[in-house]
Amino acid sequence: MNLTKTLTWAISALVVLPLVASANIDIHDAPSRPKNMIIMVGDGMGPAYTSAYRYYQNNPDTEEIEQTVFDRLLVGMASTYPARQSGFVTDSAASATALATGVKSYNGAISVDINKRPLTSIMQMAKARGMAIGIAVTSQVNHATPAAFLAHNESRRNYDEIAQSYLTSEADVILGGGQKYFPAPLLAQFKAKGYQHIDDFSMLAQINKGKVLGLFADVQLPWVIDQQDSTQLSQLTQKALDLLSQNEQGFVLLVEGSLIDWAGHNNDIATAMGEMHGFANAIEVVEQFVRANPDTLMVVTADHNTGGLSIGANGEYAWDTNLLQGIQASPAKIAEQAIAQDNWQAAVNQALGFEANEAELIRLSNARMQGKAALETSLKQLIDTRSYTGWTTTGHTGGDVQVFAAGPAADLFKGNQDNTDIAEKMMSLLPKTQ
Amino acid sequence: MNLTKTLTWAISALVVLPLVASANIDIHDAPSRPKNMIIMVGDGMGPAYTSAYRYYQNNPDTEEIEQTVFDRLLVGMASTYPARQSGFVTDSAASATALATGVKSYNGAISVDINKRPLTSIMQMAKARGMAIGIAVTSQVNHATPAAFLAHNESRRNYDEIAQSYLTSEADVILGGGQKYFPAPLLAQFKAKGYQHIDDFSMLAQINKGKVLGLFADVQLPWVIDQQDSTQLSQLTQKALDLLSQNEQGFVLLVEGSLIDWAGHNNDIATAMGEMHGFANAIEVVEQFVRANPDTLMVVTADHNTGGLSIGANGEYAWDTNLLQGIQASPAKIAEQAIAQDNWQAAVNQALGFEANEAELIRLSNARMQGKAALETSLKQLIDTRSYTGWTTTGHTGGDVQVFAAGPAADLFKGNQDNTDIAEKMMSLLPKTQ
Ligand SMILES: [Zn+2]
Ligand SMILES: [Zn+2]
Repeated sequence: MNLTKTLTWAISALVVLPLVASANIDIHDAPSRPKNMIIMVGDGMGPAYTSAYRYYQNNPDTEEIEQTVFDRLLVGMASTYPARQSGFVTDSAASATALATGVKSYNGAISVDINKRPLTSIMQMAKARGMAIGIAVTSQVNHATPAAFLAHNESRRNYDEIAQSYLTSEADVILGGGQKYFPAPLLAQFKAKGYQHIDDFSMLAQINKGKVLGLFADVQLPWVIDQQDSTQLSQLTQKALDLLSQNEQGFVLLVEGSLIDWAGHNNDIATAMGEMHGFANAIEVVEQFVRANPDTLMVVTADHNTGGLSIGANGEYAWDTNLLQGIQASPAKIAEQAIAQDNWQAAVNQALGFEANEAELIRLSNARMQGKAALETSLKQLIDTRSYTGWTTTGHTGGDVQVFAAGPAADLFKGNQDNTDIAEKMMSLLPKTQ
Repeated sequence: MNLTKTLTWAISALVVLPLVASANIDIHDAPSRPKNMIIMVGDGMGPAYTSAYRYYQNNPDTEEIEQTVFDRLLVGMASTYPARQSGFVTDSAASATALATGVKSYNGAISVDINKRPLTSIMQMAKARGMAIGIAVTSQVNHATPAAFLAHNESRRNYDEIAQSYLTSEADVILGGGQKYFPAPLLAQFKAKGYQHIDDFSMLAQINKGKVLGLFADVQLPWVIDQQDSTQLSQLTQKALDLLSQNEQGFVLLVEGSLIDWAGHNNDIATAMGEMHGFANAIEVVEQFVRANPDTLMVVTADHNTGGLSIGANGEYAWDTNLLQGIQASPAKIAEQAIAQDNWQAAVNQALGFEANEAELIRLSNARMQGKAALETSLKQLIDTRSYTGWTTTGHTGGDVQVFAAGPAADLFKGNQDNTDIAEKMMSLLPKTQ
């Protein structure tokens, strides 16, 4: 937020480093500051999501409740409120601006201040130091969070402008969804700038060096639960690490589990848990990289809470993870399939992994007659009721989020902090300019 | 949970201590382990409550959002799930059993295991070492949380048995509510055991040494918001510290902000914020004691979340703290007064601190005709709608809670842990027995 704070952190980083080093890695290998930094954002991933994910992942055949990657890496929490004019509840644009620039702005702002003037991002600072930069996300690549790291715009809604501005972002790696925002003429401009363009996961293997623009879906990537493949973001993350780590000056990478938030907006617990699993897998990929590269700092956080999710609802002291684990497809997909066939009850029971009872089937049937959207809503209500899952909103909520970290200076992020502090701390760890 | 873990903590406590000491207190004054330990429990105080309290306390006349005592002291988080047979969502009895004994049990258990056998509590271990022990709470003193620290019972509902068993608890200080559970014959037995009995806050000043049983209300203490006095728990806490610290062997004290949970069960945000303020004030009293007595460890946590509280609700990205700050009484008290008078609209507007509009007054009027309970519910709905506060349940929810600590070995509690780990760590810091 201010220079004094930044200096304090820079100094405390130096004081803290020997301790961190002794705890995590061989002290003789520990650098005085990280060469590489990876910031990972679980969009909308409030504390209830990481607790829920632990129980969702629990193996019922063992006595213990297994720890998750979130449990291993927790170091602190962060407040997320935007600039005063936007109240206490942030959107993804203002919070991504805070995480990318260290400055609070209004909801909707893409790395511009409250007067709509561009703010310097950590990605720009990294580029000025000769480092490589990149993003790997599950939303369209020009969605609010990655946009705040690579662009400046007065509104997150200016998708086309943001996509266009990526041309001058000097990003080395851009991986995610969003083909519809990159028409042929724009793709031609990226190619002219030296970018390799790919549009299918199978093409990732061909890219072994240089700059890449990979767009793997028209808008966002498909839901993990509908792919029954939780490695999409892991694959993008691994490729980003492979490419960016070739830069001798180091790199800064943003990885976002973007669709946790989208599932939260939909109040869709089954789909949210699938997205959490995809994000957790990507965190594990980065954790492995940090273990193998002790000069790398990883910081994981959320930009805000979405949905007011609770584990337990309506007075019941319970949460049915067995039921959630059995759900084979997103309610959206189940509804789509059920609309298309006559013997829909059997298909719905099969996809849900449990038998809806007579009263539940009547409710689903009535909803089905109103169409796909109504049936999807009815399916989500059925799942919430059966699993004891609660929601308070289809929007965001203002509670603090968790902060997870590993690698050199990870201890800087412990305890309570503001989301702008996370950016300031990471910026203070960049190499000094000449 | 097991001996290996306990030993690991005991060893890491010794390794960690010099670092903690250098961060918090003069290293020359730092003891190798704490002489005194204070555990403070915000009943039901999930992460949304501490964030909400920050914004509720915010001074709108300053540019910054002020830090709270929770922000200063945050070190980690804890999972709260009970023994497997009770699922993933704990009640206060099982979680207090975990915090007092380091063992998970079933919901309803008061420091007995899943086979209803008594478990050794940290209070018993402290007594065996010649230390003083005590509790200071805002519920009846024999409510679930303090009961798990001072008694053993197969059910939290056996209030009379639990009160009776306090006679043999050897507790030096018992302060809170619950006169109805301590009839004259039982009080006579306490006096025969050397307890001074008081039943009014004005009598606290008379007690300067020895054992005390102070019961200041029939059941729970009055709501902070209705007293317009947020010092009740602070006063009890200060008196407990004054008395217990006279023991040369040190002490273990439990302080509970019990009624945060009760307000949460009632889905009553205004009353909950009042109780948060009372608890925060008590934490500040303990924080001052720890500053003045660097041989004292304080650990603050919650036993679980209550109500599924969210900051923001129903799609709105907002939370109106100005409105909440202006509310002068609990909805229960406002309803009671409105039922009793004809010109109730003016009284309600006055107590709420804002003018209900015509549609709102019609809803309140209809509710008033159904009686006090309906009017109270309608007032809470009005406050929730106006302030954008969300709830998912009148029960508990299963998300992780925060852990706050200061003093020697505070760093032991950083990162993620289980609630049983908190007890195990504190037990590992007790003096060794001969
Ligand atoms: Zn969102
Ligand atoms: Zn409760």
